[in-house]
Amino acid sequence: MPRPSGDPFSPAFHHATDLVGKRWTGAILFSLFHGRTRFSELTATVPGLSGRLLSERLKEFEAEGLVTRTVVPDTPVRITYHLTEKGRALGGVLRHLDVWAQTWLAPGQGAANPAPDVGE
Amino acid sequence: MPRPSGDPFSPAFHHATDLVGKRWTGAILFSLFHGRTRFSELTATVPGLSGRLLSERLKEFEAEGLVTRTVVPDTPVRITYHLTEKGRALGGVLRHLDVWAQTWLAPGQGAANPAPDVGE
Repeated sequence: MPRPSGDPFSPAFHHATDLVGKRWTGAILFSLFHGRTRFSELTATVPGLSGRLLSERLKEFEAEGLVTRTVVPDTPVRITYHLTEKGRALGGVLRHLDVWAQTWLAPGQGAANPAPDVGE
Repeated sequence: MPRPSGDPFSPAFHHATDLVGKRWTGAILFSLFHGRTRFSELTATVPGLSGRLLSERLKEFEAEGLVTRTVVPDTPVRITYHLTEKGRALGGVLRHLDVWAQTWLAPGQGAANPAPDVGE
């Protein structure tokens, strides 16, 4: 693995924080990471996410090389989305962020009561 | 460690992605993580970051329990900022994000040429 840059102003790091923080991006990538592959599954599991916005995000993910889109020639045609290696790697980072969030932000947790010893 | 929620709509996870993606937040936290502790060091190392905005972010970090502010009674008085355990843990997640960014987004990298074997 490359070294971390250790440079908070690395353009690549900056781009990555922008990406992760963009509205719905984390939730959609995390859904894909957890095995949801169909457009309808993704809209159904993201409350408040419109089809239009999901479509826009999936196009961005394709352009970023995070997701591949596959047309399955069934009747009716099915379209599935899968994370690329790059996308899965980012999903792994989001998993670390989720562990952090569940440790430090979830109800009953927090700085005063981090409960770090809950077994995995 | 608590389990990751595996739930992309966990409010805690959502809050964490918002936090990481907020303008300058990643850069400032990462600077603190790499040992910069003084207001002047932080402004000097974040190109384009105004003192006003840094001050605002540091107050948010204090309110989130990510940072402690210490007044050192020197002449002149020095004010230093240090990550709490919660803040250091988030810094560790940002380190993972940085590794991902340097692997997949840095010049010469990318989906077609991830160079995953560069030694650490």
